[in-house]
Amino acid sequence: MTGGFWTDDVTRLLRVGPGFDLRDVDPDAKPGTEARKREGIEELVRSAQQLRGLQEKLFAQSRLGARDRLLVVLQAMDAAGKGGIVNHVFSQVEPYGLALSAFKAPTEEERAHDFLWRIEPRVPAPGMIGVFDRSHYEDVLIQRVRGFAPPEEIERRYGAIVDFERRLVDDGVRVVKIMLHISPEEQAERLLARLDDPEKHWKYNAGDVDEREFWPEYMDAFGIAIERTATERAPWYVVPANAKWYARAAVQRIVISELQRIDPRWPEADFDVAAERARIERTAGMRWPA
Amino acid sequence: MTGGFWTDDVTRLLRVGPGFDLRDVDPDAKPGTEARKREGIEELVRSAQQLRGLQEKLFAQSRLGARDRLLVVLQAMDAAGKGGIVNHVFSQVEPYGLALSAFKAPTEEERAHDFLWRIEPRVPAPGMIGVFDRSHYEDVLIQRVRGFAPPEEIERRYGAIVDFERRLVDDGVRVVKIMLHISPEEQAERLLARLDDPEKHWKYNAGDVDEREFWPEYMDAFGIAIERTATERAPWYVVPANAKWYARAAVQRIVISELQRIDPRWPEADFDVAAERARIERTAGMRWPA
Repeated sequence: MTGGFWTDDVTRLLRVGPGFDLRDVDPDAKPGTEARKREGIEELVRSAQQLRGLQEKLFAQSRLGARDRLLVVLQAMDAAGKGGIVNHVFSQVEPYGLALSAFKAPTEEERAHDFLWRIEPRVPAPGMIGVFDRSHYEDVLIQRVRGFAPPEEIERRYGAIVDFERRLVDDGVRVVKIMLHISPEEQAERLLARLDDPEKHWKYNAGDVDEREFWPEYMDAFGIAIERTATERAPWYVVPANAKWYARAAVQRIVISELQRIDPRWPEADFDVAAERARIERTAGMRWPA
Repeated sequence: MTGGFWTDDVTRLLRVGPGFDLRDVDPDAKPGTEARKREGIEELVRSAQQLRGLQEKLFAQSRLGARDRLLVVLQAMDAAGKGGIVNHVFSQVEPYGLALSAFKAPTEEERAHDFLWRIEPRVPAPGMIGVFDRSHYEDVLIQRVRGFAPPEEIERRYGAIVDFERRLVDDGVRVVKIMLHISPEEQAERLLARLDDPEKHWKYNAGDVDEREFWPEYMDAFGIAIERTATERAPWYVVPANAKWYARAAVQRIVISELQRIDPRWPEADFDVAAERARIERTAGMRWPA
């Protein structure tokens, strides 16, 4: 907890546990803090160094063989703020340590394969923080809502996802799934704001309004997906996201907390420091041009 | 030029032109500014918004079909500051708009192919800023110095690089090559600093000292590569880099200047704004749970 912004363990409050019901999550709520927008923005800046320090150690230890890495899956309705999370939280880590994958509607080639075929190559390498902007969960969300796959195939996928994520965890990937939860009223406001500003027109996708009309079906699909795939080792977090500043501070804190569980350390030198120093000093007088 | 930090057009001063000789570039020089470290760091922060604004427009216009993108190739001796450029300059753009590729020693599979085989898939997509930390130039630098390829093959590669880069330019890629130029004394100090700090041991690579001993041969190889591949449409810049703050501010200014040449614009909406507004407003009263 930092500087009094968080009054409780926000990661515990937002982590999905037994008896979870999406209907109980208020998108306007701000669990774990009594602060306001200004403090939220300050918190995001203040904790950047902590996040970056952990990420640098995660990356450093991988250079000497550690296999740990973090995969953060972001799922949400359109305009819920996934992009803002990437631009305001994950932009705080070194570009070398970040592997961002934005999954769009599958291509013809991707559709010809199992739904995890396009996911596997994007699993982060040791030392990396992988971020999925959309993911294999689309295959049990839009695909379920729109009937793009038959019910028995959707059913099969929940188990396949649990197996897949367990395999990643067994290989050293800390897997964290985050739903940004907004209300339909908030989405309408954000979509209208994109229409009001010509500089935001490129972000507007008419298809988003088509999906919006299936809101209750999407919420059902989210609820089922979360229930079927939230495990002790690959948890789901549902983050109230009507207030962008809250969602960003909360996701930053979740990421920091998950990195702390990995507990990365500066690796020990695997060379003789004194001998290396002597080698460099032998050529310390080199000049160029001579 | 911004706020008086730059007193001359640094991009013109650092761009390689006819009669270029690497021996004429002083790694301690700071062409284009009379400012000092504190102002350099301030300049880097001050111009971040300008860089980000251009990058956002570049990305935005690609969503509606523009093919422009930027490829920045970074080459340098070890410890010259490529990593710092990525972490302090390119970290300023949105993660969605940055495609960073760090090329290591080629794998067995890569060595079995033409030297450009592993490069082609990393060419940035429309709208992106691609950054190569090392690149196809390694194939005419270390490979020449260490004799990993025969002279006639090295010779062939200069022409192949010019052809390859011309093809990228023809396809809408602005190609910019940057050498960070440090002195051997500065390198020795930086390598020793890595040995002095246990938190930097993971960055230390004993092989760097092996390469260091070939400094004159590397400078010859850089000089030849630059001379053979600097073209009007795919220019080289040589950036004095003994002062990290100068190199970072200069590279930031080069990138801004190259983006300004592309001159990206917010794209026009390809949908009926009023009709879309009406569609959203029709569902504005939606509540969930109902």
